[in-house]
Amino acid sequence: MQSFKNDYSEGAHPRILQALLASNLEQEEGYGEDRFTVQAAECLKARMDGADVDIHLFPGGTQTNLTALAAFLRPHEAAVAAGTGHILVHETGAIEATGHKIIAIPSDDGKLRPAQVQAALDAHTDEHMVKPRLVYISNSTEIGTIYRKEELEALSRFCRERGLYLYADGARLGSALCSGENDLTLADMARLTDAFYIGGTKNGALLGEALVIRRAELKADFRFHIKQKGALLAKGRLLGIQFLELFRDDLFFELARHANAMAGRLQSGIAALGCGFLIHSPSNQVFPVLPDAIIRRLELKYAFHVWSRAGADSSAIRLVTSWATREEAVAAFLEDLKAAL
Amino acid sequence: MQSFKNDYSEGAHPRILQALLASNLEQEEGYGEDRFTVQAAECLKARMDGADVDIHLFPGGTQTNLTALAAFLRPHEAAVAAGTGHILVHETGAIEATGHKIIAIPSDDGKLRPAQVQAALDAHTDEHMVKPRLVYISNSTEIGTIYRKEELEALSRFCRERGLYLYADGARLGSALCSGENDLTLADMARLTDAFYIGGTKNGALLGEALVIRRAELKADFRFHIKQKGALLAKGRLLGIQFLELFRDDLFFELARHANAMAGRLQSGIAALGCGFLIHSPSNQVFPVLPDAIIRRLELKYAFHVWSRAGADSSAIRLVTSWATREEAVAAFLEDLKAAL
Amino acid sequence: MQSFKNDYSEGAHPRILQALLASNLEQEEGYGEDRFTVQAAECLKARMDGADVDIHLFPGGTQTNLTALAAFLRPHEAAVAAGTGHILVHETGAIEATGHKIIAIPSDDGKLRPAQVQAALDAHTDEHMVKPRLVYISNSTEIGTIYRKEELEALSRFCRERGLYLYADGARLGSALCSGENDLTLADMARLTDAFYIGGTKNGALLGEALVIRRAELKADFRFHIKQKGALLAKGRLLGIQFLELFRDDLFFELARHANAMAGRLQSGIAALGCGFLIHSPSNQVFPVLPDAIIRRLELKYAFHVWSRAGADSSAIRLVTSWATREEAVAAFLEDLKAAL
Amino acid sequence: MQSFKNDYSEGAHPRILQALLASNLEQEEGYGEDRFTVQAAECLKARMDGADVDIHLFPGGTQTNLTALAAFLRPHEAAVAAGTGHILVHETGAIEATGHKIIAIPSDDGKLRPAQVQAALDAHTDEHMVKPRLVYISNSTEIGTIYRKEELEALSRFCRERGLYLYADGARLGSALCSGENDLTLADMARLTDAFYIGGTKNGALLGEALVIRRAELKADFRFHIKQKGALLAKGRLLGIQFLELFRDDLFFELARHANAMAGRLQSGIAALGCGFLIHSPSNQVFPVLPDAIIRRLELKYAFHVWSRAGADSSAIRLVTSWATREEAVAAFLEDLKAAL
Repeated sequence: MQSFKNDYSEGAHPRILQALLASNLEQEEGYGEDRFTVQAAECLKARMDGADVDIHLFPGGTQTNLTALAAFLRPHEAAVAAGTGHILVHETGAIEATGHKIIAIPSDDGKLRPAQVQAALDAHTDEHMVKPRLVYISNSTEIGTIYRKEELEALSRFCRERGLYLYADGARLGSALCSGENDLTLADMARLTDAFYIGGTKNGALLGEALVIRRAELKADFRFHIKQKGALLAKGRLLGIQFLELFRDDLFFELARHANAMAGRLQSGIAALGCGFLIHSPSNQVFPVLPDAIIRRLELKYAFHVWSRAGADSSAIRLVTSWATREEAVAAFLEDLKAAL
Repeated sequence: MQSFKNDYSEGAHPRILQALLASNLEQEEGYGEDRFTVQAAECLKARMDGADVDIHLFPGGTQTNLTALAAFLRPHEAAVAAGTGHILVHETGAIEATGHKIIAIPSDDGKLRPAQVQAALDAHTDEHMVKPRLVYISNSTEIGTIYRKEELEALSRFCRERGLYLYADGARLGSALCSGENDLTLADMARLTDAFYIGGTKNGALLGEALVIRRAELKADFRFHIKQKGALLAKGRLLGIQFLELFRDDLFFELARHANAMAGRLQSGIAALGCGFLIHSPSNQVFPVLPDAIIRRLELKYAFHVWSRAGADSSAIRLVTSWATREEAVAAFLEDLKAAL
Repeated sequence: MQSFKNDYSEGAHPRILQALLASNLEQEEGYGEDRFTVQAAECLKARMDGADVDIHLFPGGTQTNLTALAAFLRPHEAAVAAGTGHILVHETGAIEATGHKIIAIPSDDGKLRPAQVQAALDAHTDEHMVKPRLVYISNSTEIGTIYRKEELEALSRFCRERGLYLYADGARLGSALCSGENDLTLADMARLTDAFYIGGTKNGALLGEALVIRRAELKADFRFHIKQKGALLAKGRLLGIQFLELFRDDLFFELARHANAMAGRLQSGIAALGCGFLIHSPSNQVFPVLPDAIIRRLELKYAFHVWSRAGADSSAIRLVTSWATREEAVAAFLEDLKAAL
Repeated sequence: MQSFKNDYSEGAHPRILQALLASNLEQEEGYGEDRFTVQAAECLKARMDGADVDIHLFPGGTQTNLTALAAFLRPHEAAVAAGTGHILVHETGAIEATGHKIIAIPSDDGKLRPAQVQAALDAHTDEHMVKPRLVYISNSTEIGTIYRKEELEALSRFCRERGLYLYADGARLGSALCSGENDLTLADMARLTDAFYIGGTKNGALLGEALVIRRAELKADFRFHIKQKGALLAKGRLLGIQFLELFRDDLFFELARHANAMAGRLQSGIAALGCGFLIHSPSNQVFPVLPDAIIRRLELKYAFHVWSRAGADSSAIRLVTSWATREEAVAAFLEDLKAAL
């Protein structure tokens, strides 16, 4: 059974395991104060044109989101997110568990634009309602779309004018920044948001996300929050070594490019067979719409999520590729789909 | 510089890294539903005489504690802990951040006995105060002491009679169970507590703690809580592979025995030099009391914590050993101490 | 300026103030253990055919909602509410501040029906999402509609089959139960819900809401929750005396009938002038749709909320009546509207 | 049965009820935006020499404390309180329920001094522990002692130097400020603390506490917090009318002086009979130490709390007086005690 269910089905890229092996018996400080973590942060800052940012490494994405939002927001302040936002749908109320409401905004493509956020502001007028304070976006989004630079610039400008924080969930930021349609850089992300995170788990690491905080007022005492939420690993070196390996050269981007290339091949191959898609998604998630009978046939050999009903007899499925997806697996899938149609 | 600061200064035991390498490219289910995690849980249950327990793997100890206590307690219920308890002192208010008070009980040796807990019950009489509901203990404790079987049995019986949950933090459970003075087993831990966790991070794993829930009413929906607190790793295999390697044979216990042996050698060597100790600690933490001038001399070559002031010119220091502590390092430390005295 | 802004613009019904005066110097137990509170609870139970319920008096509605839901739900459980629900919109995230998500369900008339709740259940399938556990309804709703007995019975049956708690916010329950279209009784409310509250503040009291808990498992330790949330008044007699006065005879219902009668007169008078309504609302809130120019004219003499835009040049306004609304005020409003049209 | 259990056994001072009656049918804005509340705040500010403070009226003390501390503290910040502090002991974990730890400091007389707070600061050194941020004191304290001006000035200076907020719980501030040993004024309280509250419930009101916020950074958006915690009464006039009546002339202080006079008479009368006291308490709470047999005799005619064991056969009891305590009741108690001894 070949899985296209997600981008975390395998372990880590071999270079990462080698880096762990090579440093294994060196004694280091705990809790993220080891030299690998320090170096990883330096590498990351260099990629952001030396921006004055703080960088903290986390074990996972939900924990990054909940720690950051709980630290950034006062009790009456709320986040604003697209209806598809991961924090809104797939984190078991992690943000609400820290006391904060998330205001859902309908969005067809998973992205937010100023007019949509303005509508949320207009609906929250006084102290009987929460105060929208932070705009949460994902790049790439949960449905594979990505932000163009002009879109992020417009949203960033809007947020600054309105006194809103802009926070980007980058669980799949590698895939977004390496998309053929992308014109954003890591430096742009740091410049245009107040904080964002760079996902390692879904791009070759065993685990790990790097939170980048740019706005000065959000930096204070942040390690207290990490510890309080249980995210300060005793062997923080585990995260530092991985991010150092990913960013000391271009490994992070190479892995994302491979994932995107495999997704692109799936997308063009499926299109060539005459099938449509739920949405145009230029990153490592592809959402073809297939007849249900075909889906059942494919499920015998491939693992993937059936995403949503698309018609009386058809559904959209989600195919996810990763740094580890083999060309042969893609080719076989397309062969099997062709045979089934 | 040789560090005796803690038991998480190195990476993982080499067998663990080999196990990660060997399985790295296999595709597995995410979120702890992989076959390694399933097998690890089976191995652990077998060590507990097949007890009817649920086992969940976590990235770290603070997260295990906060997830468990938040899940187990209703909003008005409190935990009871020794004044030295890790949740009370060194977790940045993680438990309070989930809404629960911790009632501190003074304890000279870091352990709790029924009479002490009864005093806390007596002081909490009505709805104007929190309701003590869960007794938190550590084994070994934060100051290296361990529970004898009769002590744990007495506390367990007391808790059941009073309707209290008994929860054991086992960050250093390996060292406790492999102490020369220990007469408890993993099966006893499962039998006598309502839940406890087995620490991997401080006993040879890269990261990971195994929470064991025995009481039926505490098991329901537990994975929701793990996810909500951000502790459900996408690549849960990372934890499963490690615990499987630690428990498929006696590796976990061998590593703890080594740590204890090194601590024992330090303890007897220091005693032979005529120095006293803050407390009798038969596990992998040793607390010798030394003249401050000697401490300053040792700090030039060794890293360790100065724990507490012991007199006008002397302090207790903490020396921690681990699976990775080399005999040569212990011998050198004793040599240097002898030379300094 | 005559206000139709709400049903809490005046103080209390004179009989309530007299009751406070008459008992003022009697010494009583604090914290709701006074004899007035005990008697009030007995009177209320008698109105519910002696149902086996617990009754707790609260200062206000938001506090009742947040205390009840925080007590009833475990950390991963969520409430389900109509998009217009008070807890969702007008309580500044009070429920989320206790850690719980509220799942919003679109509803044209402010009411929930089984199929709508089922859709929410269908969308929440596993531990990556919150678990819907409590259905929150309002009667009357925030837009003046009320539940018919068969509707509440269907919803109640559905909730029991699905293991959901049914909770009714009765801030305006008096008006609902005294509506000309109502066929529910207090006893029905107790029989069909797991908990509900009876609003005093909006029906003649200075302040006060009576929470009724029917389901046994929700009763335990409830006074701890009241105290923890700051809702246990030292002089609890203040609430007891008022509810005793409202329910020792039919005062509560007389006041609601008066409010409804005044609303009915407004509604029929406005309809007779040819104006339409946002929604059919058979309780003490009326939502006529008027030309904006007329609204501006009326605002010179009357206070009311402009509720929502209804067209290019017209809006719905909200007129609320109460036990204190005078017939002359209603007549004057209708005269002035007629003159303005 | 005459009760000396507390200062909230009766209703309100008759002038307060008259004020409610006189204004009862006037229509007013809801939620504390009525003219009475505005006037009450003006009267209070005038008593503080026109200090630039914000004033918010709350239904009760626990709610005031929990709303203020939840608003003032970031998630990792803790309050520091004397071991007897009301928030630490008698509020069912209300502060912890908002996510914050309270650090307990042993104190014989219920008061805090800079050296004690410094010790708490010294014990909290890094991000593995909570960060002490707010010092909570009570005046009068829970055991009847009061702060002298020089004590409060020293604590205030210390807090400002260390970046700590100073917050005073004034549930019994009236009694403190009217004590024969007091040299503080309301203006001093405003000048020396960052926020404090003036208790109405225990000094003649039906209910109500006035929170005074002086420090600018703590004022922002405060009404959101009041609403979120359920403390924003729809008929906020109820609080405004009462505080206006208490402070439009000297009523508040007259009532406190009466309570203190009655306590003083009890204290000197009991001392004259040869009995000692748990502590010197120059306010409206008196703690005589009596033989247990005498206590049992007194309990037949008087209600009071047995506070703590004082010896093998004796205990301290607590006698509380109020604005409503009659001279005859005090005289009768002293007679009966004399007869019993």
